[in-house]
Amino acid sequence: MSIETQSISPQLTSDGQLQHFLTLEGLTQAQLTDILNLTDSFLNKSDRSIKKVPLLRGKTVATLFFENSTRTRSTFELAAKRLSADVLNININTSATAKGETLLDTLRNLEAMSVDMFIVRHSSSGAAHFIAQQVTPEVAIVNAGDGQHSHPTQAMLDMYTIRHFKCGVENGTMQNSGFENLSVAIVGDVLHSRVARSQIHALNTLGVKDIRLVGPRTLLPRDQHRWPASTHTQLETGIKDADVVILLRLQKERMTSGMLPNENEYFSSYGLTNQRLKLAKPDAIVMHPGPINRGIEIDSEVADGPQSVILDQVHFGIATRMAILSSVMNNHMQARRT
Amino acid sequence: MSIETQSISPQLTSDGQLQHFLTLEGLTQAQLTDILNLTDSFLNKSDRSIKKVPLLRGKTVATLFFENSTRTRSTFELAAKRLSADVLNININTSATAKGETLLDTLRNLEAMSVDMFIVRHSSSGAAHFIAQQVTPEVAIVNAGDGQHSHPTQAMLDMYTIRHFKCGVENGTMQNSGFENLSVAIVGDVLHSRVARSQIHALNTLGVKDIRLVGPRTLLPRDQHRWPASTHTQLETGIKDADVVILLRLQKERMTSGMLPNENEYFSSYGLTNQRLKLAKPDAIVMHPGPINRGIEIDSEVADGPQSVILDQVHFGIATRMAILSSVMNNHMQARRT
Amino acid sequence: MSIETQSISPQLTSDGQLQHFLTLEGLTQAQLTDILNLTDSFLNKSDRSIKKVPLLRGKTVATLFFENSTRTRSTFELAAKRLSADVLNININTSATAKGETLLDTLRNLEAMSVDMFIVRHSSSGAAHFIAQQVTPEVAIVNAGDGQHSHPTQAMLDMYTIRHFKCGVENGTMQNSGFENLSVAIVGDVLHSRVARSQIHALNTLGVKDIRLVGPRTLLPRDQHRWPASTHTQLETGIKDADVVILLRLQKERMTSGMLPNENEYFSSYGLTNQRLKLAKPDAIVMHPGPINRGIEIDSEVADGPQSVILDQVHFGIATRMAILSSVMNNHMQARRT
Repeated sequence: MSIETQSISPQLTSDGQLQHFLTLEGLTQAQLTDILNLTDSFLNKSDRSIKKVPLLRGKTVATLFFENSTRTRSTFELAAKRLSADVLNININTSATAKGETLLDTLRNLEAMSVDMFIVRHSSSGAAHFIAQQVTPEVAIVNAGDGQHSHPTQAMLDMYTIRHFKCGVENGTMQNSGFENLSVAIVGDVLHSRVARSQIHALNTLGVKDIRLVGPRTLLPRDQHRWPASTHTQLETGIKDADVVILLRLQKERMTSGMLPNENEYFSSYGLTNQRLKLAKPDAIVMHPGPINRGIEIDSEVADGPQSVILDQVHFGIATRMAILSSVMNNHMQARRT
Repeated sequence: MSIETQSISPQLTSDGQLQHFLTLEGLTQAQLTDILNLTDSFLNKSDRSIKKVPLLRGKTVATLFFENSTRTRSTFELAAKRLSADVLNININTSATAKGETLLDTLRNLEAMSVDMFIVRHSSSGAAHFIAQQVTPEVAIVNAGDGQHSHPTQAMLDMYTIRHFKCGVENGTMQNSGFENLSVAIVGDVLHSRVARSQIHALNTLGVKDIRLVGPRTLLPRDQHRWPASTHTQLETGIKDADVVILLRLQKERMTSGMLPNENEYFSSYGLTNQRLKLAKPDAIVMHPGPINRGIEIDSEVADGPQSVILDQVHFGIATRMAILSSVMNNHMQARRT
Repeated sequence: MSIETQSISPQLTSDGQLQHFLTLEGLTQAQLTDILNLTDSFLNKSDRSIKKVPLLRGKTVATLFFENSTRTRSTFELAAKRLSADVLNININTSATAKGETLLDTLRNLEAMSVDMFIVRHSSSGAAHFIAQQVTPEVAIVNAGDGQHSHPTQAMLDMYTIRHFKCGVENGTMQNSGFENLSVAIVGDVLHSRVARSQIHALNTLGVKDIRLVGPRTLLPRDQHRWPASTHTQLETGIKDADVVILLRLQKERMTSGMLPNENEYFSSYGLTNQRLKLAKPDAIVMHPGPINRGIEIDSEVADGPQSVILDQVHFGIATRMAILSSVMNNHMQARRT
């Protein structure tokens, strides 16, 4: 693979198959839809359990979390185990890097151990790309969140959730994706959110025309004209008649830095209450990537109310990650055979 | 299930089957005996190994330890793996609760991940009950120790150990449990011990008439008349002619609080030596939930002597927990099908 | 087994089979060659993957690391999982020993849990031997590094690597081992290195006549006449015409203690550069147990150059450990049956 191709899309094989899963940028609607359809196949609709399948039997998946997140790590660990993989949790803080080894040497050592896939979380934007470009073609990389850049598996489970609740099955199997006529509001700290970035890419690719970014001006992107979305500094206008309201987690660290009003002020302007939710469509769903801050970005009566699908997101997240891990691994093995 | 039923016995299904394992209170002799009999089936008597069986294949068991205990966690992890379950260890200290998420939100997230069983250890009495009442019926809860309240799996492995050494097989298969004529002394900090509480319930349910609580007055229950047991402040009279002497672990923290004399004084009055052990029946067994404090509650010559069955308790503990996990999961699945 | 036999060789059964893997001292060339041959069988030569085999199905392997090493632990964990064992990682710092339990009591508890094998790493020389002498015959012990004494699995993977690159297959299958005519230089802090100690034993047993220990006088053994090796304080003479150059990791801690010059001085005298490597044979290989200190014991152009086989060592390490774990467990089970 030439350097040129790599810099454009290290995650695709020469014939356009996903060999890593780094970002939703550059993926086609068909590729996203394939993942959503595959997700379906891992869910037992009857009892909300997740099937155990042997698709990754004999494969080793290592979670490399440079940024601590028990919850996200657990969802990947569960997804990999449900696919029958062996899972190795690497605590990077206590590992060889503490002994002065470089990140690349750590990675090359892991790849020499015949680990087949790394699931990487890192506080620097671009870390997963960097790793994908450096490791041998034998190792598949899945981005579990890099800095403020991208969190593509979260966005895919969000798309699955939206499709599940808001897109008729008949629409999804026809020419259009079923997403076209939805109005989706993303509320909160859009500027610093890797989740929001990936969601916007996914929604746009799946054909959503009305994407709205809602929050205080300091937390909205400054180059908004380059985004396929409108911006709103008033929650009330932002969520009006929306089909989907996605709340982002407010990072409390930002408040101390003066970028944000305090928690009470934020809640009084942007906290989602039942009263405000009435402005959205009557059957609108409320989503949140978790963990939620009750009383800051969401009122408990909304979080626990009938329109909240926050726990459905978590549930679908296991199956979505199974779909992503298995299709990336499959493409990877096929690419190595040819 | 009505609130009334829940508050009485959240661990039983409407037809009286164990769907959680929270406490031994309210369980019948038949229920305890079923668990002891099932334990038998997981033990290879010939070589002291533990069978691996597929009873929990495809199920996910999460250990949720809010109170650190590598040993207890390991016994559950081993039991679950011997049943072919996938095991997820959740370190609650470093998890989402650190990010300000409430315990209930953490639990609901885990249950949304299709975890089938939580094994919970918590420093607050009633924590496992609380969790069992809050989670959906899909998740089974096993109490691995809650505050000073209950440690039912430990008590069950203790009952198995007593039955193994002190109850003839012919007795156990007949109308009586084989426990009726035993004299059992529980020695140490009974007042604060969740192990002792559960043991007393189990011994009483299995028909033991002579249960003796032995220790300094400050460490014996004050409402002793409500307990099916006698109390003794002298070790010598407490263990006289006993068939079983159960020592409790002395929490060193208590000593600094003035509730206890120092270690040497405790040992001089209540430490079990070979000399004192002669007061019990010649074939009495000595038990301890571990980890033992040599030279405080037990002399090394007793701990390592022929009457000690402390390591047998550990060995039987894996099989006992396999019995509990598999029967609770089985009842749970049956309840969901109907 | 008599005490006499134990003190001579606790790792051998009465008929000379390896029942533990503690040290390479006392092992025959045939025993080492058997392990190297078995290692071959676990490697897929075609695609550098490692086969998954059911040799330890139903067995439980516990890693007991008293000294932190994520990398070494991971290689053992992967090896055990590739053999289909259940793996239990015991973090000794947070375990019962913190509650005042003795090491022996911790060990006896683990063995009572029907753990079949302990993989032990400890900062004290002789720890694995001590444990092997104390546990019941049911548990096999593998030494994953004890103090400055021994690191036998590392040495075995090094021997496999040397055989792979430097010994013709035809030699290996004949009467001699193929190692006889090699010149091997071990460079660095030989005095404190358990890796070097085990390598010297292995090389000598496999018939290497020209073993050279290279480093500053303060880091070479003082009783050099008792070692089957020559010593060299000049790197240039030490690696001249060598077939294999093994670099040891410099422990940075030693430098502050005054035993070592600073990093720059060390590199200027002993750091392996491409220029210096030209003194060795043109096809010499460069090895390092990892993690490497770039710019201290090795120049990056050597580490990443064509003669470096450092990542091959890691790759072969999984298969070598599979060979050791499976043969020790197999001998163990046979010994118990008879």
